Parts: sequence; structure tokens; C-alpha cells
Amino acid sequence: MAKAKCIGILTSGGDAPGMNAAIRAVTRAAIYNGFDVKAIYRGYKGLLTDEIVPFRTQNVSNIIQQGGTILKTARCKEFETPEGRQLAYDNLVKEGIDSLVVIGGDGTLTGARIFATEHNFPIVGLPGTIDNDLFGTDTTIGYDTALNTIMEAVDKIRDTATSHERLFFIEVMGRDAGFLALNGAIASGAEAAIIPEIATEVDQLEELIKNGFRKSKNSSIVLVAESPSTGGAMHLAERVKNEYPQYDVRVTILGHLQRGGSPTANDRILASRMGAAAIDALLEDQRNVMIGVRNDQIEYVPFNKAIKNDKPINRELLNTLRILSI
Amino acid sequence: MAKAKCIGILTSGGDAPGMNAAIRAVTRAAIYNGFDVKAIYRGYKGLLTDEIVPFRTQNVSNIIQQGGTILKTARCKEFETPEGRQLAYDNLVKEGIDSLVVIGGDGTLTGARIFATEHNFPIVGLPGTIDNDLFGTDTTIGYDTALNTIMEAVDKIRDTATSHERLFFIEVMGRDAGFLALNGAIASGAEAAIIPEIATEVDQLEELIKNGFRKSKNSSIVLVAESPSTGGAMHLAERVKNEYPQYDVRVTILGHLQRGGSPTANDRILASRMGAAAIDALLEDQRNVMIGVRNDQIEYVPFNKAIKNDKPINRELLNTLRILSI
Amino acid sequence: MAKAKCIGILTSGGDAPGMNAAIRAVTRAAIYNGFDVKAIYRGYKGLLTDEIVPFRTQNVSNIIQQGGTILKTARCKEFETPEGRQLAYDNLVKEGIDSLVVIGGDGTLTGARIFATEHNFPIVGLPGTIDNDLFGTDTTIGYDTALNTIMEAVDKIRDTATSHERLFFIEVMGRDAGFLALNGAIASGAEAAIIPEIATEVDQLEELIKNGFRKSKNSSIVLVAESPSTGGAMHLAERVKNEYPQYDVRVTILGHLQRGGSPTANDRILASRMGAAAIDALLEDQRNVMIGVRNDQIEYVPFNKAIKNDKPINRELLNTLRILSI
Amino acid sequence: MAKAKCIGILTSGGDAPGMNAAIRAVTRAAIYNGFDVKAIYRGYKGLLTDEIVPFRTQNVSNIIQQGGTILKTARCKEFETPEGRQLAYDNLVKEGIDSLVVIGGDGTLTGARIFATEHNFPIVGLPGTIDNDLFGTDTTIGYDTALNTIMEAVDKIRDTATSHERLFFIEVMGRDAGFLALNGAIASGAEAAIIPEIATEVDQLEELIKNGFRKSKNSSIVLVAESPSTGGAMHLAERVKNEYPQYDVRVTILGHLQRGGSPTANDRILASRMGAAAIDALLEDQRNVMIGVRNDQIEYVPFNKAIKNDKPINRELLNTLRILSI
Repeated sequence: MAKAKCIGILTSGGDAPGMNAAIRAVTRAAIYNGFDVKAIYRGYKGLLTDEIVPFRTQNVSNIIQQGGTILKTARCKEFETPEGRQLAYDNLVKEGIDSLVVIGGDGTLTGARIFATEHNFPIVGLPGTIDNDLFGTDTTIGYDTALNTIMEAVDKIRDTATSHERLFFIEVMGRDAGFLALNGAIASGAEAAIIPEIATEVDQLEELIKNGFRKSKNSSIVLVAESPSTGGAMHLAERVKNEYPQYDVRVTILGHLQRGGSPTANDRILASRMGAAAIDALLEDQRNVMIGVRNDQIEYVPFNKAIKNDKPINRELLNTLRILSI
Repeated sequence: MAKAKCIGILTSGGDAPGMNAAIRAVTRAAIYNGFDVKAIYRGYKGLLTDEIVPFRTQNVSNIIQQGGTILKTARCKEFETPEGRQLAYDNLVKEGIDSLVVIGGDGTLTGARIFATEHNFPIVGLPGTIDNDLFGTDTTIGYDTALNTIMEAVDKIRDTATSHERLFFIEVMGRDAGFLALNGAIASGAEAAIIPEIATEVDQLEELIKNGFRKSKNSSIVLVAESPSTGGAMHLAERVKNEYPQYDVRVTILGHLQRGGSPTANDRILASRMGAAAIDALLEDQRNVMIGVRNDQIEYVPFNKAIKNDKPINRELLNTLRILSI
Repeated sequence: MAKAKCIGILTSGGDAPGMNAAIRAVTRAAIYNGFDVKAIYRGYKGLLTDEIVPFRTQNVSNIIQQGGTILKTARCKEFETPEGRQLAYDNLVKEGIDSLVVIGGDGTLTGARIFATEHNFPIVGLPGTIDNDLFGTDTTIGYDTALNTIMEAVDKIRDTATSHERLFFIEVMGRDAGFLALNGAIASGAEAAIIPEIATEVDQLEELIKNGFRKSKNSSIVLVAESPSTGGAMHLAERVKNEYPQYDVRVTILGHLQRGGSPTANDRILASRMGAAAIDALLEDQRNVMIGVRNDQIEYVPFNKAIKNDKPINRELLNTLRILSI
Repeated sequence: MAKAKCIGILTSGGDAPGMNAAIRAVTRAAIYNGFDVKAIYRGYKGLLTDEIVPFRTQNVSNIIQQGGTILKTARCKEFETPEGRQLAYDNLVKEGIDSLVVIGGDGTLTGARIFATEHNFPIVGLPGTIDNDLFGTDTTIGYDTALNTIMEAVDKIRDTATSHERLFFIEVMGRDAGFLALNGAIASGAEAAIIPEIATEVDQLEELIKNGFRKSKNSSIVLVAESPSTGGAMHLAERVKNEYPQYDVRVTILGHLQRGGSPTANDRILASRMGAAAIDALLEDQRNVMIGVRNDQIEYVPFNKAIKNDKPINRELLNTLRILSI
């Protein structure tokens, strides 16, 4: 491949804090290295509808601290069809874009992999999702911010949790991964976390009631990953109400506020490094790779590995949580 | 009444940020003026169970910034009976407490009024509730913090609100009063607030759909006071889903996190002033009054007026919200 | 005056959090009432250099939560001369602007008053300054945010203030007014405030040493208004080091960070109400007035009164601070 | 060594956010494993003055979110002498403490190493310092919080940095290490960092002026590590004023507020894991080691290595910062 002349950039899927820091870094590192940059709005949808504008270094001034994504994001059914992807390809050619940087989660990278193969188009991906469920990188862009947002919310709830024998179930995001629930529980001093990774191993609620809740503490807080495997906070609360009617059970579902907020230092630094690394990767003729950071080093992770491999939780943390909630 | 020698202090009902600042102020102003201070734990319940300990100035060091209440709070059914109140009185006499400062909302002050009359006991109340629904004071302790907590949560939700035609209902506290919903909506740039004060005047949801939501904006955010009068966010969402199935409707219920958090400057200053004023009031032989601050001046508000009078919302704000959400 | 057809808006002087909320409110209320809106960049400077662009409602989307001012601000010497003001007037005429809303402090309103008189031009001012030193309004836009910023900084410093006999002087803004220092001290539980208002009455440092610092507390924190009248924190620290060499004295100057940050709920609501009221005022043919909010009601304050009258601090607070720091 | 029966715990040196989370974790993990726990106040000083109290699990309730250290901290000259250490040893014996967990930085671990060797006493150390300058662990307890505190302060300063050609020097902590300055600069989108690690290699100010500041940007922000090697922000500002009088130079020294604040999720999780690991280490008869976390795994780092080896900065970040500030 000859050196790319114009890089397209887009964000897709659920948004995550730090996406703007990544957009800034990709844009500036590209310009620094002599590329042109074009911004594609609303993810893959904007590729099909040709919502594409040139970006200069000023376009990304003063966005590093902003939550959300200035490029917007959207789901796009048409991009899942060959016809849709052909239209996208035609627009890229028309706009003179000869390589892409896409920022998003699982679905975004899956779409990128299919498109890249089908049209032999160079794409580099950045892992942007609060769920931290992509293999090949220690953390994903947005995860640290969401973790702190959850912790701050639980801090506030604990302030008011003073009555006896009250059991709070707080539902956090994480359809397939318990990172937010488990780490959020440790960080906020919660009593337990109910996570999808061990849903098939033990009845976590039963364990919790058996081991953890028969204590003299004023109240207990349990973080629950929003996942079919855990059943969710509402379902668990119903079970407790039926089986242990003596408990005063409360439910809070944190919901969309977990996706927002000004990114933490870690997320901004991660996004900045990954954005710069994406341009390095394109300069080195890398393609179909996601940028990861492992052990503080940049790595190129083939899309297949990033998407298909499960990222395991650190089991030491389960133990730590149990010990510290005595 | 001869000068009181020992002041008891308690917090009761739902907790509110700034209660600790009030406890600190009452304790220190009392000691400064030569009183002894005794702290009563768990509200009126602690009066009955004699959970009472002497407090010195160090007991309230480094608490001004903490959410919740170091004295805990509880509901207490027994205090609603003459027998319960007699037991409370006996304990006060036993402990040598000859006047009380109570911090709480509607229910707390109602209990104080009955007890004070029944036993001819000097009580001064401080308005501590996030709902801001007590007459005779511009704001109550905890309201400003809750308002900012709501605003920050909505800021985060808006960061992620990028898809088209999405309608968010965010439920905030305020059973009888729309202060949090209305002011929270203005502060967060939300499109509308649905509040109990005008629930009987108009069908607020109908108004909203008719006037406000047929715009080209990406998404709309509506704050809903958690109240039988409004029906709550879930109920409104169901109505929209049935009547306007084209809309993508989301619900977030902020719940208990609204009660927590480190108090804002306004709440700390208000609590500090009111705490000091409570001691002034006792020195002046005031009793059965709530401390209010109106137009930046301390006022003594008889319990009856504080509890029974409705505090009106400022209707100018309804208009401002409508104009600014165009 | 016939109804204005096009309103110009600018921010000038030191920036303050909430200015963007005011810009949003002025713009939307103007459009709601049928006006055109033009935004003038960099304060009066932009009037002279014709940095003026039309604004629509979308131009002010998603800015209510941002610190600083999207219109920028600058000092402008030329506007202090008749020639400069004539040029400004010519540009206004050229742009078709027939009334102005200016947001800023003392200097901004003084410039507005002179210009308005000289050219018989309708101007309404909004009080935007963190110092809260404008007469005729209970608080100014930006003050509440700065107060909370100061409080949060002092909270952090107190976390670490554990060694014995340490005396922290923390310098905050307030050249002519002690609002930030005095209220900041109460809110953060500091031991004292040194403010310009009573600089001529007592030697505040002498008082502090005499009454306040000979206690058994681990450390003392004193907030100092940055003002020639107080001498500033550095100067006071030097005096203590010379006269009381046994004390371990530390100085922190909060500086520019006091001007920034996402505005608090109070500042956003105040700015929103004032912005809408500015348009009401123009509709009522008001001119040469600043919008104030007193006792929760909008007021029109003639420029002369707003600028020339001193706004007194509430002396009750001095007493409260002294009592609570025992 | 037979299994330890009673563990002493102390914090020493400069305090750091997360120390309380570590105290909580050490206490609870110790009790969980059958140890008694005694808390030693004011670091090594409390060992000499016998400020030692038994701790139970309730003593560490509700502290995970608090900045500072509930055990206080102090410098202690006497502990640097054999006589002082003998007195400390005698008190440990008297109190029945047979192993120690110490939390602190460089100086704390150096003291621990000498004492452990001299008296053959089992000690495990936890790295608690915002500077992140201990070898053998990816980050130290407190570093992530300080980094976010700095970033938030710079965010606020940038809000107000709107005038042309203004150069802000913001001084942050880091006597021997540029982690806070370099990472803080990337996270806040600052233009440059001046750090001790490369002070002997290049004249960083000269580089900055030459490469970075001749741009059309409104203002530039430079983070400076407070270190003899860099000269500090004041010194650099003086140099610029002398050599480039056309620049408008401002200085902010963040100072003590960097040490405070509620710890971030990362710091709380790190402290929790390290605290639990300290007890594991004692159970395994480890001694004279610091607990580190590298690549998400617990490691035991001999005191000598932790203290004596320099921890290098990641040079990739210098490059990233330069590229992103174009």
C-alpha cells in the first residue's frame, strides 16, 4: 500500500467518555504526519448518507474534556448488508478517503472487519466502550470514567443508607462483562457484586444471603450487572422480597448516566495514546487491527482476536471484595 | 423560662446533605454560649431508647463536608403515641436535657410541635429536607445540593443523548413540590418539567407533546417529580409508548442518590447560619419555631405556619423554561 | 422607541461561569420574541473590529453547562475613547443592530453606560462576575460557582492539614469585596476570613492571632481576599513568620481556577432568568439598566446605581464564622 | 517465624488519597485472617509516644471514600536515631504487636527498612504517595487521584484562558518525578510539560518557545514539576518575562490541594488490593517488602529495590504530548 493520503474518522455504537479525546488525537496525529482528515458523522450511517466534512486541527480544540462524541453516533442496519457497504465504499472513494479509523465497541469493530475484508480497505479500530469487554487491551476508552461515575453514585447512596436491615441492589451496565459491577463494588465499599462471569457457577444471590447479609451492619449494597445472566436488579429484588420478606429491599438503576460525563485522566490519556498510535499503525501499513494498550505498551490486536476472545475478570478481585466486606 | 442548661440535638426523617453542617453549628454555638450539648442518635427513636451521648466541639470536627448525618436518622412509630412521647420526655429529664433542636422535614416538625405542646418543652426546628417544601424559608437544608446532583446527572445523560427522536423521562424527588423538577430542568437545559403544582390545571404530557416535542432536536429530556399527582416517569413513558409509538422513550429514576453527596456551599452556609440562629432563639426564649432564612435574614417561623402553609413555586420559572427550550 | 429588530450580545471583562447560560437565554428569548440576534466576539473589541455573526437557536445548544464564554472576552482600551465608541456605533449601525445586551462586571457596565448615553443606544446589562460586587442584585452570575470551587479546594487542603500548629493562608479573589472569602470560609469550615470591608476597622491578623489561633486544633485555615486592603496572603504570611516564628505557615493562591468550571445550578438558573428578563426589559423599552434578582424577583437597576453603590456584606456572617470556628 | 498474632498499622510522610482505603483493607483482611489489629497514630511518631489503639472492623467503616488519613501522619526526626528506634521497638513489644504494615513513600519505606533490619522485625510496606516515584509498582496509592485533581484544575483554568498570547505556567508536585506533570499535561490538553527527568538533556523552556509557542492559539498552558531540576514555575515565568517581554505570562501553583480529595476508583481499588495483599504477605512470612501491582498482578518488591531504583517515565508519552499540542 502506498502511503494513505486522507483518513476518515468515525464513532459508532454506544458512546463512551473519551471518544472526543480520541477524535482529537487521531485528527492531530494525522495532520502532524501529513494526512488530510475527514470526519464522518453518525457512524456508519454517515458513510451511507455522505455526512462527511474536512477536519482541521481547530475542529478538535477544546473537546478533550467533553463527554459524548462530537461526531455523534448511530446504529445502522443498512451497513449490515452488502449493498449498504457498497454504498459506503462508493462514498469513501468519492470523498477521496483511503483509510479509516473507527472508534467503538464490539459491533463497530465487527462491522469494520467485514467491510475491510470485503473491500480491501485499510481500517484501524480504537476500543471505545464503557463495558471494557474487548480482548487485547487492559482497558477500553470510557471504562475508567464509567467506573468512577458508578462509584460516586454509590457513595451518595451510601450517605443515606442508615436504616437497619436495608438491602440496596444497584444495577450497572455490563451485558456480557462484570468489570463495572465488580470493580465498582470494591471501589465503593459495597458488600457484593453479581456478575455474568460466574452466573453459571453459583447462585450468587443465595451466596450473598447465606454469607454476607446476616451481619450487624446498618445496610448492604450490592452491585448487579445488567445482564440476562444475572437477571438484573429488579428480578433479584423480587426474589429477595419473596424469600426473605423481613428485608427492606431497594433498587436503583443507574442507567444512561453511566455513559456520560467529562472523561477521567486515564481515559483521556488512553484515548490520546491510542489515537496517535492509530496513525502510527496506518503509517506502518497495518490494517484490520484494533489498538490495545497492555502493560503500558501499545499493541496491534487483529480484529478477530479483539472481538471473539473473552476477556476474563481477575478472580483475585472476587476474593478481595469478599474479605473487605466483613 | 430560666436559661437552658443542656441542649439536645437530633436529626429525623429522610436525611439531607448539610445536616452535619447544622449539627456542627448547633453544637459549637451552644458551647460558645455556655450550654452543654447532648446528641441523640436515630431521631426520635433514640429519645425512646436513650441513645444519648454528650457532645463536645471536637465531636463535630471535620464533618461539615460530609453527606448524610452522623447522628443517623430513623422513622419512629412509637413517638406518634402519647405513651411513646411520655417515655421520650422521661429520658430527656433523666439526661438533664431542657431544650431540643430538631433537624428534619415536615414529619419531624409535626412531631416536634405535638411533643412541645404536650410536655411544654422548648424546641427549635431546622428545616432539613431536599424537597424544599417547608413554608417560611426560601430554601431548606439539602435542597441546593440535591438540585446540583440532579443537574449533574442530567448533564451526563444529555452527553449520550444523540440519537434522533428520543424522549427521556427522568424522575426526581418531590412528592408534593416541584422545586427540584422545575429548577432542575432549567439548570440542566431540559425541555420540560412535569410537577405536582399544576397537575390539576393542565395535562402536562399533552402540552409537552403538542408544543414541545415536534421539533428537530436530537432528543428531549423531561424532568418528572415523583408524585401521585404526576403519575411518575414510568407511567408517563407508558402513555407515550401507547399514544405515540413512533417515539423512542427512555426512563431514568434517579432515586436515592439525590439524598447524598457532600453539601454545596449554599447548603453549608445555610445550615451554619440556621444552627447558630437556633441557639440565639433559645437564648431569646423562643420555642416551637422553625428557623427560616428569607431575603438573607433569619426569621422565626411558628411550627404551624411552616408545616401547614403551602410554599408556592415561582410561576415566572415555568415561563422561562418554556421559552429557553425552543 | 419602536420595537427593536436586532439584538447584539457580547461578554466583556473577566469571564465568569454561567456566561454561556446567559448567552443561551438571551439568544433564545430574543428569537422567541421575534428578534434577530447577532453575536459580537471578544467584547467591545469585537464591536470595533466587526467580529459579528448572526446567531440562531442552534448556536447556543449544549452550552449551558460549559464554563467560560463561547463569545470570548477581552479588555479594550479603544472603547474608552470617543473615537473608539464612534467606530463601535458605526459598526452597530452597519450590522443593523439596534439594541445591545452586555454581560460583565463593573467595567463592562461602566462602558455600557457611557456608550448608551453618548449615542442614545438602548443597552441592557447582566451582572456577570465571580466577585459578586455589583449593587442591586443578591448575587451575580458566576459567584455561586466560584464559591463552590473555593470550598472544594479548601476541602482538599484540609484533608491534608494534619500536622500541628500549621497556619494556612489561602488567597481567593475579591479585590473590593469579601463575599468569596467570608462565605468561602464559612462553607469550608475555615477558621477566619480576612476581607477588605473591615480592613480599616481592625487589624484582622492581630485579631486572628489573639483570639483564634491559640487553640489546640491541628491546623488553621484562613481565607484572604486578594486585595490591596488585606495585603494578600503572601504579605500576611510574611508578617506571621516575622512576628510568630514558632508557627509553620503555608500559602496557597487559588488564582485563575476560580474563574472556570461548569456552572452550578444556581448560576445557570440565575443566568437563564436574567437572560430572559433582558429581552423583557427591551420589549418594555427599558434601557441603561442592569437586570438584578432580589428576593427571588427580577428588578431593573439603573447602571449608575449598580456601579456606584457599594454592596455591603452581611455582618451576621462575620459573627457566625467566629462562633463556629471555636 | 510463627504466625503473627497482632499487626500494627501506620501511615507516615506526606499523605495521599487512598490511604484510608488501604487502612480499611489491611484492618479487615487482618481480622478476616484471625489477626488482632492495632492502629498507630501520627506515623513513626506515634510509635515513640505510644499513641496506639486497638482497631476492629467498625473502626474502618465508611472511610474508603475519605481523603487524607484517619491515622494522621507526621515527620519524626527521632525515628532516624538508633535510640528513637529502640524506643519504638520497646513500645511495639509492650503493645504485643509482632508485625507492622506501613503506608507511605520513599522516606517511610527507608525508615521501615532500617528498623526491620535493626530489630529483625517483620514489616510490609504499601506505596502511598501522589508522586508515583516508587519502583516496582505501576502506580502508587494517591497518584491517580492527584492526576485527576490536576486535570480538573487545568480544565478550569483553560475555561478562562481566552486572551491572545497568554502563557500559563502551572506548577504541580513531583520533586524527582515528572509523572504528574507529563500525564497531567496530556490529560488536560496542555501544550507542554517541564519535568525533571529530561532537565539535563535539553533546555525545555527553550524548546517550548522555539517549537511550541509560536502558534496562533489563544493561549498556551505548560505544566511544570515542582523540582530543583526544573526551577519551578515562578523561575520559568521570570525567564520568559525577561527574554520574551511580549508574552503575557501567568503562574498558578496548585500546591497542597493536590494531596486531598476523595480517592478515585483506581486508587481505592489499588489500595484495597494492596491492603489485602499485605496480609497475605505476612501469612507467607514475607518481610521487608513493599507490595506492588504490575500488569495487574500483585508483586513483592524488596524495600531496597523499591527505594533505590529509579522508575522511568514512558518516553512515548513525551512524543504523544508534542504531537497532540499542534
